[in-house]
Amino acid sequence: MKLGTNLSFAIKRWIDGPQLAEIVKSKLGLQYVQYTWDLSDPWWPADKRDKIAVSYAKAFKEAGITIESTFGGLASYAYNHFLAPTEEMRALGFEHFQRAIDMTSAMEVAAAGMPFGSFSYSDAKNAQKRDEIYKIALAMIVKLARHAKEKGLATLLIEPVPLATEFPATAAEALKMMNDLDGQTDIPVRLLVDWGHALYKPLFKENANMDIWMEVCGKYIHSFHIQQTDGSLDCHWSFTRDGLVTPQGLHDFWRKYNLDTQTFFLEIIYPFEADDDFVLEDMIKTADIVRIAA
Amino acid sequence: MKLGTNLSFAIKRWIDGPQLAEIVKSKLGLQYVQYTWDLSDPWWPADKRDKIAVSYAKAFKEAGITIESTFGGLASYAYNHFLAPTEEMRALGFEHFQRAIDMTSAMEVAAAGMPFGSFSYSDAKNAQKRDEIYKIALAMIVKLARHAKEKGLATLLIEPVPLATEFPATAAEALKMMNDLDGQTDIPVRLLVDWGHALYKPLFKENANMDIWMEVCGKYIHSFHIQQTDGSLDCHWSFTRDGLVTPQGLHDFWRKYNLDTQTFFLEIIYPFEADDDFVLEDMIKTADIVRIAA
Repeated sequence: MKLGTNLSFAIKRWIDGPQLAEIVKSKLGLQYVQYTWDLSDPWWPADKRDKIAVSYAKAFKEAGITIESTFGGLASYAYNHFLAPTEEMRALGFEHFQRAIDMTSAMEVAAAGMPFGSFSYSDAKNAQKRDEIYKIALAMIVKLARHAKEKGLATLLIEPVPLATEFPATAAEALKMMNDLDGQTDIPVRLLVDWGHALYKPLFKENANMDIWMEVCGKYIHSFHIQQTDGSLDCHWSFTRDGLVTPQGLHDFWRKYNLDTQTFFLEIIYPFEADDDFVLEDMIKTADIVRIAA
Repeated sequence: MKLGTNLSFAIKRWIDGPQLAEIVKSKLGLQYVQYTWDLSDPWWPADKRDKIAVSYAKAFKEAGITIESTFGGLASYAYNHFLAPTEEMRALGFEHFQRAIDMTSAMEVAAAGMPFGSFSYSDAKNAQKRDEIYKIALAMIVKLARHAKEKGLATLLIEPVPLATEFPATAAEALKMMNDLDGQTDIPVRLLVDWGHALYKPLFKENANMDIWMEVCGKYIHSFHIQQTDGSLDCHWSFTRDGLVTPQGLHDFWRKYNLDTQTFFLEIIYPFEADDDFVLEDMIKTADIVRIAA
C-alpha cells in the first residue's frame, strides 16, 4: 500500500522546507507528500507566494520525496468557491483555484485539488438553483483544466465532503460529476476520497462505508485521505486513537481493490492549541502504526 | 451587559448581507456585531472584496445593527503572520492586516483586529530569536496603526491565544505588549480577550481564570469573545452545552468590573459539517440563554 502524508499537521509549526522534508523523511519515514495551501496561500502576491512554495518543493525534491499533489486546506475551506450564490463570489473561487494551479506549476507538481464548493443556506434547499449553479461551476472547471494543462499539470482533483449543502457529497454525486466532465476537460479531473468523510454517519447512515465509493466511482479515484474517525464528526484524528479505521482494514481495502498508484495520504488535523512536540510525537506514532500495515 | 455576536457561525451558510442582518436582528435579537474576515478574505482583489464587504456593512446599517469591529477568522489563523520566522513571511502578515484595515475602512467600521502571530517550532524554543522577532513585529504594528488612522479607523485589536508558541498568550504578555506600544501608535492598540482562551487549563493551569486578565491588563481590554468551554481545548462551543461559563457568571463579571463599552461577542464555531438548520436553532437558543443574563 502506497503511503504518504498531507502536510496539514505541520502548518504554523514546521514552516521551513528543509526542516519539514527531514521530518517527513527521517521521522515519519514517508516518500509521498501532498502539499497544503495552508503553507502558502494561493492569494498571496504571486512572486512572494511562489518563492516560498518553491522553497518547499526544492527541499522535498532534495530529500528524495515526491510531492504528488497540492491541496486546499483549512483557509481555503472557509469560503464557498464554485458553488457560491453570486457570480462575483464564484469568480473568486475560479481565481483562487487558478492561482493555486499557478503555484503548483511553479513547484513542478503534477496535480492540484480542493473541495468543489458550498451552496448558501437558501440555495442548498432549492433544487433548480443548485442545478443552475452546478452547470456554471462545471464550465469553470473545464476552463481551469485548460489553464492547468497550459501550466504543465497532469490532473485536477475534487474532494467530496460530508455535507448535503456542498457537492459532491455522495458517491453517486461524485460519479455524476465525473461523468459530466468526462471528455470535456483538457486534462483529467479525478476524485480524492477522504475516509473520514465517507464514514460520516449523520449524513450517510447505512451507506457510510468505503466500499460504496469503490463500487460507484472507484475508477475515478486518484488518491485518498486517511485518518481515524468515530463516524460522528469529520474528526481527522490520528491513528493513536481507536475508531472505525484500522491499519488491517486499510491493508485489506488496498488488496481487495487491487490499488496501485492511489496513495493513502494521512490527513491528520490537530487543534491549533496542541503542543508542537506532542504533534510531532503523535505523527511519528501514527506513521509507524500505518506503515506496519503497508 | 453589552451583548453581540461575531459572525463566524454564519460562514458558508448565510452569506447574503440582508439575510444575515435579519437573522442577527430578528432571530438572535442582537444589536452589536463583529464581522469576520472569513466572509470576505482580505487577500481578495480589493475592488471585488470591498464590494462584497460593503454589501454586508450596508445591510447591517439598514437593520440598525452596529458592526463594532472586523476580525480575523479561521482562514487568517492558518498562517504565522507577524511572528513568522522569515522577513518575507512577516511582510505577508503586514500586508494581510493592512488589506484587512483597508476593507474595514471601506465598511466604515471603527476597529480591526486579529491574533498577533505564531512562532515556528524552532523559534518558539529560542528566547533570543523570539525577542528579535517580537521587536520587528511591534514596529510593524506601529506602522499599521498609522495606516489605520489614515484610513479612518479608531482602534486596532490584538487577541491573545492559548499557545505558548504564539504571543501574547498570558495576561502578563498581553500587558507587556500594551506597555511596549503605549504612546507609540497613532491610534490605540487594545486587547480582545477570549474567555475560552483564558480558561484553557493545559496551558494556564491554576491561572486559567478571567479575573487575572482584568487585574493584570483590564484597562487595555476593548472587548471579549464569549463561548462555552470545558477548559480542555479551545472549544468555541455554544451555550446550549454545559461547561465552565454560565450566564450568571458572565453577568457577575460584567458587574464586578463595572464594564461599560466592552462588548461580549459570542464567538461560536460550529464544525463545517454541522447542519445549517441545527446551527441556526442552536445560535437562537444560545442568544436567548445569554440575553436572559444581560
